[in-house]
Amino acid sequence: MKKNCLITIATLLLFHALQAQSQKDEVRKIFDEALANGQSYAMLEYLSLGIGNRLSGSPQAAAAVEYTRERMEALRFDSVYLQEVMVPHWIRGHKEVGRMVNSVTYGSKELSVTALGNAVGTGPDGVLAEVVEVQNFNQLDSLGKEKLEGKIVFYNRPMDPKHISAFQAYGGAVNQRVGGASRAAKYGAVGVVARSMTLALDDIPHTGTLVYEEDIPKIPAVAISTIGAEILSSELKRSDKLKFYLETHCEMLPDALSYNVIGEIKGSEFPDEYIVVGGHLDSWDVGDGSHDDGAGCVQSIEVLRIFKALGIHPKRTIRAVMFMNEENGSRGGKEYARAARENGEKHLAALESDAGGFTPRGFGVQCSNEVFSKIMEWADILNAYDLRKIVRGGGGADIGPLKEQGTVLIGFLPDSQRYFDYHHSEADTFDKVNRRELELGAAAMASLIYLIDQNGL
Amino acid sequence: MKKNCLITIATLLLFHALQAQSQKDEVRKIFDEALANGQSYAMLEYLSLGIGNRLSGSPQAAAAVEYTRERMEALRFDSVYLQEVMVPHWIRGHKEVGRMVNSVTYGSKELSVTALGNAVGTGPDGVLAEVVEVQNFNQLDSLGKEKLEGKIVFYNRPMDPKHISAFQAYGGAVNQRVGGASRAAKYGAVGVVARSMTLALDDIPHTGTLVYEEDIPKIPAVAISTIGAEILSSELKRSDKLKFYLETHCEMLPDALSYNVIGEIKGSEFPDEYIVVGGHLDSWDVGDGSHDDGAGCVQSIEVLRIFKALGIHPKRTIRAVMFMNEENGSRGGKEYARAARENGEKHLAALESDAGGFTPRGFGVQCSNEVFSKIMEWADILNAYDLRKIVRGGGGADIGPLKEQGTVLIGFLPDSQRYFDYHHSEADTFDKVNRRELELGAAAMASLIYLIDQNGL
Repeated sequence: MKKNCLITIATLLLFHALQAQSQKDEVRKIFDEALANGQSYAMLEYLSLGIGNRLSGSPQAAAAVEYTRERMEALRFDSVYLQEVMVPHWIRGHKEVGRMVNSVTYGSKELSVTALGNAVGTGPDGVLAEVVEVQNFNQLDSLGKEKLEGKIVFYNRPMDPKHISAFQAYGGAVNQRVGGASRAAKYGAVGVVARSMTLALDDIPHTGTLVYEEDIPKIPAVAISTIGAEILSSELKRSDKLKFYLETHCEMLPDALSYNVIGEIKGSEFPDEYIVVGGHLDSWDVGDGSHDDGAGCVQSIEVLRIFKALGIHPKRTIRAVMFMNEENGSRGGKEYARAARENGEKHLAALESDAGGFTPRGFGVQCSNEVFSKIMEWADILNAYDLRKIVRGGGGADIGPLKEQGTVLIGFLPDSQRYFDYHHSEADTFDKVNRRELELGAAAMASLIYLIDQNGL
Repeated sequence: MKKNCLITIATLLLFHALQAQSQKDEVRKIFDEALANGQSYAMLEYLSLGIGNRLSGSPQAAAAVEYTRERMEALRFDSVYLQEVMVPHWIRGHKEVGRMVNSVTYGSKELSVTALGNAVGTGPDGVLAEVVEVQNFNQLDSLGKEKLEGKIVFYNRPMDPKHISAFQAYGGAVNQRVGGASRAAKYGAVGVVARSMTLALDDIPHTGTLVYEEDIPKIPAVAISTIGAEILSSELKRSDKLKFYLETHCEMLPDALSYNVIGEIKGSEFPDEYIVVGGHLDSWDVGDGSHDDGAGCVQSIEVLRIFKALGIHPKRTIRAVMFMNEENGSRGGKEYARAARENGEKHLAALESDAGGFTPRGFGVQCSNEVFSKIMEWADILNAYDLRKIVRGGGGADIGPLKEQGTVLIGFLPDSQRYFDYHHSEADTFDKVNRRELELGAAAMASLIYLIDQNGL
């Protein structure tokens, strides 16, 4: 009896060791395939240079839906389909103007600005007003209506360069852009100029979403380049007679019909368990959205392509999802989660790549202690590919709505240092993407999806 | 007695914990200083844009010696001085020509080539010969004199993209460039065209050092862009009548006087123990040598600047060394080690940054098991800055000669993916360097030097 028991234990241990070795070998094959035959870069080239930027509701967004659908069909995924979603349809109109007037040094001088997404426009008459500079909401609140009424509020708190993760620096400053307009409008301000969300000192303005609070007047708002912000701040110190002229032509049209694009490989053992890998297909209307988030979309398609190329038949159903409208509404992510719930689909895990196509560092995981321990069992396999940063916390705006269904949420973590040099600006273009960094990211994502699929969570 | 003993142990443990916390805090300050006030980027801007490329023996190399000396004096390091070293003085002369002749598709067509460093020139008459393509030395050897005499040998083995570290891919292919000429000359070949050492497919040729074996005829040699290599290879398959015309004007002049540039902060407890941090000041004569290795030089100066800015008084003497002539002779590294031995200087550790100014990943350490265990005790501190890759093996060409003196050799490991896109080519320019990535590298280096200095090895 005791002998039988020992034999059983030995057999189990052997089985476990063989299985671990086989998975380790498969991950090696995934990286080989991505590095030798990867198609992420070629797909991104088409999405970025062939289609260009893809704001929700735009013709280019529709073209991107069609391109990724066709691409996944050409790759013969088991099933490729569109999921309808109504999206906000904001348009910039013709180019905005931001001009300092009455400055001591320059007299009248244009500074580089870009309208914030979802903002109302000034119309052709523009807005001309004195400027009040603040660093944060507390300072704004303490100035109050008396000092702010009729003024343009200039939010000028820089991202803190001392953070190692550029995303943390972003998180510490972005409330100015997202909530600054309504906060200022409460005190009667007539416009907002917000310092661009970047750690670089240059003349490129960075747009991004603004959210108006209900029942508060909607006032126009622009981002100003960091160099523009430095000039404006310095001129404000020289003269309180300085005014700023703001002219934007943006407007919000009625919601438009668009789609999430979904491709899947059917699971062989548990077809009713789903693992999602995704990015968002929409981008801002400046640059071509290569890093944000063309990269995440093509990497997600590439994960499934690699599976097929290597003849990996997943146990669970693996879905590549191109979410629509992450940037100015997150409607695609919300609709995907709503439909998943309605259809009773059990989503084991969702992995989002929305931090750029840079060299991979690891993953951030939002899950229980037990699940995290399980993932850490794969650390040795992942270490060999320099995926050494497996940390708690993370996910993504599009997969976030799946959380309440118990889905393990995972954010792909590429290196963050260059991200905000390009983010939401004319500088986010295909030439900023390195082929190997992008393909390595896809391999990293495919490897983790593979390990989750094989071992469960 | 027993009680006293416990108190002693408790005191020691407390002391150790306080010391660890204090070192952790100091590393945080090092990163804060580098990210908020770092000067690496500004120094590199001058070195790259103000001076330009710095081949050994060139006027620009002399300017770089003077600039870094002045910079370190301006930073008021305890001592700044030059160390004489005679360096090879190779010059490219006017631009090289590489031309396919008799190709089926193109007839006569120029392809992008660059003379290899230290190579002899063809002179104005050039060399015109049939071309034999090989992938490796075995294949070359098996062809022998009969097939190779009077021919140009075309080495066309690509770097293997499946390596995760681009340096490993380089290591697996670079023998073609370094040793290919003499190997081919043994069989009577009259010239060499070597595929550029890069993982990118583009039209930029990458130079680099060639070493002639003694007593073998020196034949001219160039690197060809990877696109050029693909075209040449494809045309060779279409016709064996194809010839290649090679014209280079390079020559080796007599050795020239140059210098290693050294700045130091004197140790407060063990001034006779030395810790070196360095890069190499020379570069190839194409591009401006920003990544290779302007980055390593300015980061090394920055390490000492950060120490002074934070009021860190090191226990050991810390030296920043700009080594001269790493690229085509390594004379500076050899001279530095020779002088250290002659002066009886005990070198505890040497850290070299010569892998580009990219985002830091960690360090490679060449040392005993005991020393490695000691360094791994700092892993938690370093992890917080994403310096998660602390591995065995590494160093650098300039610090290598210190090995026989028992010095622990450490190579700084930035991310390697983009390095060979630029390496030794016109593309290695200042605009390819990201400020934060560069400054983070300096902070990583300063932190490790600080920990070694405080704790010994």
